[in-house]
Amino acid sequence: MDALLRRWRIFFPDATNCINLCRKQQQHCRFYHEKKKRLLLSQHFLSMNLREDKLVSQETKMGEMTCKSQRLMLLGGLICPASPGCYHYMPYTVRAMEKLIKVIDREMQVIGGHKVNMPTLCSAKLWRASGRWELMGKELLRLADRHGQEYCLGPTHEEAITDLIASQGLLSYRELPLLLYQITRKFRDEPKPRFGLLRGREFYMKDMYSFDISEEAAYNTYALVCSAYCNIFNSLNLRFVKVQAATGSIGGTMSHEFQLPADIGEDKLMTCTNCDFSVNVELINADQRCCSVCKGELVETKGIEVGHTFFLGTKYSSVFNATFQTSQGKPALAEMGCYGLGVTRILAASIEVLSTEDAIRWPSLIAPYQVCFIPPKKGSKEEEATVLLEGLYDCVAEAVPQLKEDIVLDDRIHLTIGKRLKDVKKLGYPYVIIGGKAALDDPSLFEVWNQNTGENLFLTREAIIDLLSKVPAC
Amino acid sequence: MDALLRRWRIFFPDATNCINLCRKQQQHCRFYHEKKKRLLLSQHFLSMNLREDKLVSQETKMGEMTCKSQRLMLLGGLICPASPGCYHYMPYTVRAMEKLIKVIDREMQVIGGHKVNMPTLCSAKLWRASGRWELMGKELLRLADRHGQEYCLGPTHEEAITDLIASQGLLSYRELPLLLYQITRKFRDEPKPRFGLLRGREFYMKDMYSFDISEEAAYNTYALVCSAYCNIFNSLNLRFVKVQAATGSIGGTMSHEFQLPADIGEDKLMTCTNCDFSVNVELINADQRCCSVCKGELVETKGIEVGHTFFLGTKYSSVFNATFQTSQGKPALAEMGCYGLGVTRILAASIEVLSTEDAIRWPSLIAPYQVCFIPPKKGSKEEEATVLLEGLYDCVAEAVPQLKEDIVLDDRIHLTIGKRLKDVKKLGYPYVIIGGKAALDDPSLFEVWNQNTGENLFLTREAIIDLLSKVPAC
Repeated sequence: MDALLRRWRIFFPDATNCINLCRKQQQHCRFYHEKKKRLLLSQHFLSMNLREDKLVSQETKMGEMTCKSQRLMLLGGLICPASPGCYHYMPYTVRAMEKLIKVIDREMQVIGGHKVNMPTLCSAKLWRASGRWELMGKELLRLADRHGQEYCLGPTHEEAITDLIASQGLLSYRELPLLLYQITRKFRDEPKPRFGLLRGREFYMKDMYSFDISEEAAYNTYALVCSAYCNIFNSLNLRFVKVQAATGSIGGTMSHEFQLPADIGEDKLMTCTNCDFSVNVELINADQRCCSVCKGELVETKGIEVGHTFFLGTKYSSVFNATFQTSQGKPALAEMGCYGLGVTRILAASIEVLSTEDAIRWPSLIAPYQVCFIPPKKGSKEEEATVLLEGLYDCVAEAVPQLKEDIVLDDRIHLTIGKRLKDVKKLGYPYVIIGGKAALDDPSLFEVWNQNTGENLFLTREAIIDLLSKVPAC
Repeated sequence: MDALLRRWRIFFPDATNCINLCRKQQQHCRFYHEKKKRLLLSQHFLSMNLREDKLVSQETKMGEMTCKSQRLMLLGGLICPASPGCYHYMPYTVRAMEKLIKVIDREMQVIGGHKVNMPTLCSAKLWRASGRWELMGKELLRLADRHGQEYCLGPTHEEAITDLIASQGLLSYRELPLLLYQITRKFRDEPKPRFGLLRGREFYMKDMYSFDISEEAAYNTYALVCSAYCNIFNSLNLRFVKVQAATGSIGGTMSHEFQLPADIGEDKLMTCTNCDFSVNVELINADQRCCSVCKGELVETKGIEVGHTFFLGTKYSSVFNATFQTSQGKPALAEMGCYGLGVTRILAASIEVLSTEDAIRWPSLIAPYQVCFIPPKKGSKEEEATVLLEGLYDCVAEAVPQLKEDIVLDDRIHLTIGKRLKDVKKLGYPYVIIGGKAALDDPSLFEVWNQNTGENLFLTREAIIDLLSKVPAC
């Protein structure tokens, strides 16, 4: 058991024993009980969706294909279909998304990003100027307002941001690099929306745009943003590949995709077995099996694209005249880059690559809730353990304050522990703590499931608090 | 001076002297200096917009009318026009909005609200079923997708949420009341978009929808949401009036608006001088001057509508068959309410009612940043005060950790203090702290401007930390 506990702790650096702290906390807990306010699973909206029959048939009716993440998110009531490629995000998904946004905000601001928010309605005039009004064809959702003015629903905002910067008058070279980003809903009229949040027609995207004084400075910024993307995927413990990619309708001279390897991925990647070269197959001859860098062997994998960076040069700044004043006092076109992260796609892709067939696994950092406590069934032999488990809940809320809003008590005690365990597995709590027969032993032992490894342990109250105090909070 | 300080403290309950704490913090600060990372105004994107000529002429070109909040937000670079009624929200506005969303989230969750996120694209089929596809006329922005399917861009989501609840299968009466809300971008093709964020075509709204087992229960929920709205406006220190209002295109049998009294308000209200009765003039005879409740005198005021609640009854649940199972096991239609808060409108309306003609005043709780520090001009007689002011900045960051991300150093030291003070007034920091000549006295005195009252004081380092430690953080 000790070895297993040690393995779990590998996820959390600096694991130390804090039993003394726990003892003190236990005394505090006596007072805490009086003002306790527990989060109850029965009060979560999603719990009513824990019925297998209903939602799958609904989605099937809509004629969509399914994949693991879509199936698990529908079963767990995390998303509900509205129209093809458009989903209602239910409360657990909203929580996970808000945590992911915090992670992204932090990394974008570390590299000097300023957060803005641009309109959804993008004027046709700007898109005609860039040539994308025609180029994007049917992928663009278009409309006219009451005065007949034409707009598209922004899939990205290169035109908008470049026009905005141009409208600010001449920037000084001292004000560059300038990095602006937003995290907003985007639109793309996919020919075949499918796989739930992986390929929808409405989705949340983080899009960042950079403005630099020279090509060299712009390359540095490009590398900086790429490293921030690596930090984000690393902090989520997601295995990713950065591959050379085509620039598509966005344009520019260099582009990379961040891909999560997965069988259902729609991108084919060639990865060198000898060096770190990877490339999207769309960029090379499909038969090529020899790495252009080291002549090593290229092997094919599939990936889900979760991020995409573009070196734009002056493609957009020349169209909209986004200039700055050089140190010699002359106007010059800004060198640009743009950088996208699929926010809702990362949520689904994480579930896709981490989960088992019947249990959602979230990246620990962005799980909607971190811990679910399951007390015994009402009227069962172990019923006395209820008070002990509830006491443990209150102690965790007190001793691990960063988890206070992240722990849930499954108070549906008319159901067996087994039935509830099956339910909560669908929802992806990294930890599930059960008060069963062993809780009545002296000392009390609680069954702790680490959902992300599928392992379980019996632990004392102190060991549980020790374990949970190492869980990184978002 | 003491009396003034006491008056300021009235804003913050439980004001006590904590000079001993400050002394200890001063010692700590020595270590803090070494790892300091200050937020610098010169690195804020907006600072380049502090030029009067540019943006006003831009907006005027677009033929829009202006009001105080629109003018101040344009001058301060808080918003930039994109197309009529559509604005880029710049970083300070995004910060204020995110703080306001936190305040709203907290109050919605206290009353049991679950946060969801519904698609922008709303199927014409649902809107035809409710009759609003025709009723809304030109206010609805409409489009067709590549398959010719029609959608509108949701201005509200009664149809969507009711259809969602109906799709969940029969809810149990035990699961009600159910309160779901979202904070998302909404669309309305205003005939005359104007007044900046006060009447735009794209805006952020918090919309909540409630489902209850009976009319009586639904009235209780209605009252609960109204009280949460009162809490929100009170926590923002905004004077508001709750008035009886027409139900308009949303429908239902009862409705109230939350109005901020303001001369530029587009709603005419009649308020009783004798009791707390208030009504939107659209609901009564325009000549009526006698209160229907107490026969007191009605006087006319104007207001900016920032919230609107509707008692819907079964208007939508009957159309979409949103039912629940009663305690007798029979299906019954849910009694509904819906409740809107104009998120971006609250930002602008706050500025409208609180600001002076040349200085933005935010509700303290949601100001983008709480404190701006202005060191002396480079090369001035007071230049030595720079180190003292920077030391104060670092001390505040350490001693008042909840403000650490909310303090800014105006490092544009090539400008005079006077010029910078004029600039920062445009941006609405509740507190501005200046290091001038008096900082070189023993003990050092710093000039502290309370922007929300327009008063200034000279305070010691300890008194400043005492003052700022009472600032409520969001």
